[in-house]
Amino acid sequence: MAQKQCFPPPQRLLLGPGPSMVHPRVLQAMSTPLVGHLDPAFVTIMEENKRLLRWLFGTENELTIPISGTGSAGMETCFVNLLEPGDEAVVCVNGVFGQRMAEVARRCGAQVKEVHAPWGRIVDASDVRAALRNCRRPKVLAVVHAETSTGVLQPLEDLAALAREHEALFLVDTVTSLGGHPVRVDHWGIDVCYSATQKCLSAPPGLAPVTFSPAALAATRQRRHAVQSWYLDVSLLSQYWGADRVYHHTAPITMNYALLEALRIIEAEGLETRWQRHERNHKALAAGLAALGLRFAAEEGHRLWTLNSISVPESVDDAGVRGALLREFSIEIGAGLGPFKGRTWRIGLMGESSTAANVLTVLSALESLLPRFGFPVEAGAGVAAAQRVLASAED
Amino acid sequence: MAQKQCFPPPQRLLLGPGPSMVHPRVLQAMSTPLVGHLDPAFVTIMEENKRLLRWLFGTENELTIPISGTGSAGMETCFVNLLEPGDEAVVCVNGVFGQRMAEVARRCGAQVKEVHAPWGRIVDASDVRAALRNCRRPKVLAVVHAETSTGVLQPLEDLAALAREHEALFLVDTVTSLGGHPVRVDHWGIDVCYSATQKCLSAPPGLAPVTFSPAALAATRQRRHAVQSWYLDVSLLSQYWGADRVYHHTAPITMNYALLEALRIIEAEGLETRWQRHERNHKALAAGLAALGLRFAAEEGHRLWTLNSISVPESVDDAGVRGALLREFSIEIGAGLGPFKGRTWRIGLMGESSTAANVLTVLSALESLLPRFGFPVEAGAGVAAAQRVLASAED
Repeated sequence: MAQKQCFPPPQRLLLGPGPSMVHPRVLQAMSTPLVGHLDPAFVTIMEENKRLLRWLFGTENELTIPISGTGSAGMETCFVNLLEPGDEAVVCVNGVFGQRMAEVARRCGAQVKEVHAPWGRIVDASDVRAALRNCRRPKVLAVVHAETSTGVLQPLEDLAALAREHEALFLVDTVTSLGGHPVRVDHWGIDVCYSATQKCLSAPPGLAPVTFSPAALAATRQRRHAVQSWYLDVSLLSQYWGADRVYHHTAPITMNYALLEALRIIEAEGLETRWQRHERNHKALAAGLAALGLRFAAEEGHRLWTLNSISVPESVDDAGVRGALLREFSIEIGAGLGPFKGRTWRIGLMGESSTAANVLTVLSALESLLPRFGFPVEAGAGVAAAQRVLASAED
Repeated sequence: MAQKQCFPPPQRLLLGPGPSMVHPRVLQAMSTPLVGHLDPAFVTIMEENKRLLRWLFGTENELTIPISGTGSAGMETCFVNLLEPGDEAVVCVNGVFGQRMAEVARRCGAQVKEVHAPWGRIVDASDVRAALRNCRRPKVLAVVHAETSTGVLQPLEDLAALAREHEALFLVDTVTSLGGHPVRVDHWGIDVCYSATQKCLSAPPGLAPVTFSPAALAATRQRRHAVQSWYLDVSLLSQYWGADRVYHHTAPITMNYALLEALRIIEAEGLETRWQRHERNHKALAAGLAALGLRFAAEEGHRLWTLNSISVPESVDDAGVRGALLREFSIEIGAGLGPFKGRTWRIGLMGESSTAANVLTVLSALESLLPRFGFPVEAGAGVAAAQRVLASAED
């Protein structure tokens, strides 16, 4: 019986780059019997999800909805609706997801100017200014707020000002920041923004919250060609999610139940409290890792609270340590991607995964394992350093 | 508290065009805590889903996977990978989903020749032959097997032969047939096929099983341009779902749990038995509807077992009857779409929804309601006629 072999899977502590741990209330919501996707009861749930997503994004944008796909579908939604052949876009690239943005923009037929920064560092606003000045008429400036591949948090306010100055739409990836770091779409002047459910929202993967400003929607109405994706065309989606309820596709009912319950949990905690929790647990983990002699791959002052990108010490077997964490402790952490493959570990503290207990658990597991992999550490040093941060935060 | 008002939603008997009823084992699977999308345990689940989908589609195709979106994303996957600007495609249109196929094909830049048939009738193979002969070099012949908007089942073997004869790839929508009607991808010579989880598979919406033949994959490798969708590019997806496990996107973990459990339930029932169940319950419903004086909107001899498209009697208030079914009996049936809007009801008997009890329930509810809407029926006549069919099937 193959089923017995492969399902249910083992219990894991998810401290990788996502999915994060899912609250039991969200899991329970997913076992709720379904109603139809045009049922009045489901329409009410859609409205509540829109309301809570607006609050979470910090926006009044009417078109604020969960796309029926994962975060990458959210990215694609933003680009295919704004860009068409001949348009110019400036895309900031300092990791995998910036690269992916540039690739998706090129597949829209756009002329893409990439602004690069070394992996682990933020993109320099002066480089972005130069790229925008090099365009005839830049339609989009795109950047990743929280680069999941490097653990870097990009400051957005200077870039937003540059986009405004050049009359470009400002498109931001908040996959690994929304619900963990402050994201203020309207206040910062973001026009288009996408995220995902399986990071700091702590729902399973499967939906991609997006928001489009009135200016962005106006741009979609001035297109010369139909949007290349029928599935992700916001002019059709806004009729389905708007007052008309025009049938477009069958929304993933159960995932929308999960999103609702996850958003209600966030609402009950409060955003400020939630951000503080993510900050405190990141600082505790960082102190513990420093005490073990481990170094961050992301530059100081611009590190994510939600994803900690750590340099694998020289001579230590990257995959060996991750494998032992999974087998012996049932803890998942992430591997490096691209040029960071084999060179970094990524420890996620997102949503439900961001707890003091998880910080201490992963530090104690690393303390136990690293000496076996030829990297001596002082037993208890990491845990003790983290405990000091956690204790001082309680004062 | 808005949450208390809108969640959990009321219990419904889902007898519309999908979602269908979901088995409690599938609901329970969705409440299983998550593992990561690259976890060895999840890889095993992916492999088991691929194996079971191959069995269900009747194919040896290596690239047989669930796309991380709903059925319309499955449709888009098939078209965007095969078609690029300048290609010719012949698309059969006798309902909403054929129209949608043509629209998606046009958004790929293809020259689309539509072959029309009246709504409620099958497409004529001789019309398809004429359209193919009118092409310079048709790349794709696309057709809907089970047209959800009209309740028509399209015979495929003649069309498959025509596609072969013209060296076109044969692309088929089996959203409302897979798991309810025989679908034999390899035997019939289908090159590309897509479906959805929320119809006859009786899992929630959110995944779209697709299969690509070696010939279809060879065509994707000969493209002149990159696939316009990065998210749905099968060359990237096949690396993620293949032996390399190259990270592409984060698969919807929980939906894949649900799919696995739904497929195991189908495997335990057996395909022949499952098809017979769908046929028997359709015949019972049809007998009952006839006894009530209701007529099918789909032509005789080509009616779906899984979706019964019924003409709303003249002078009966379409929405009034559906609303009363929902309010008083908590039964969902579907409205008509497009030219059938206000003119048909769609009663789905798919997967877990296809039971003798549900046939009798919906007939008795209609018997109770129709007289109030000015359509006199003989009390008990529909139920009695259905019972006779069900009893004879037991012999």
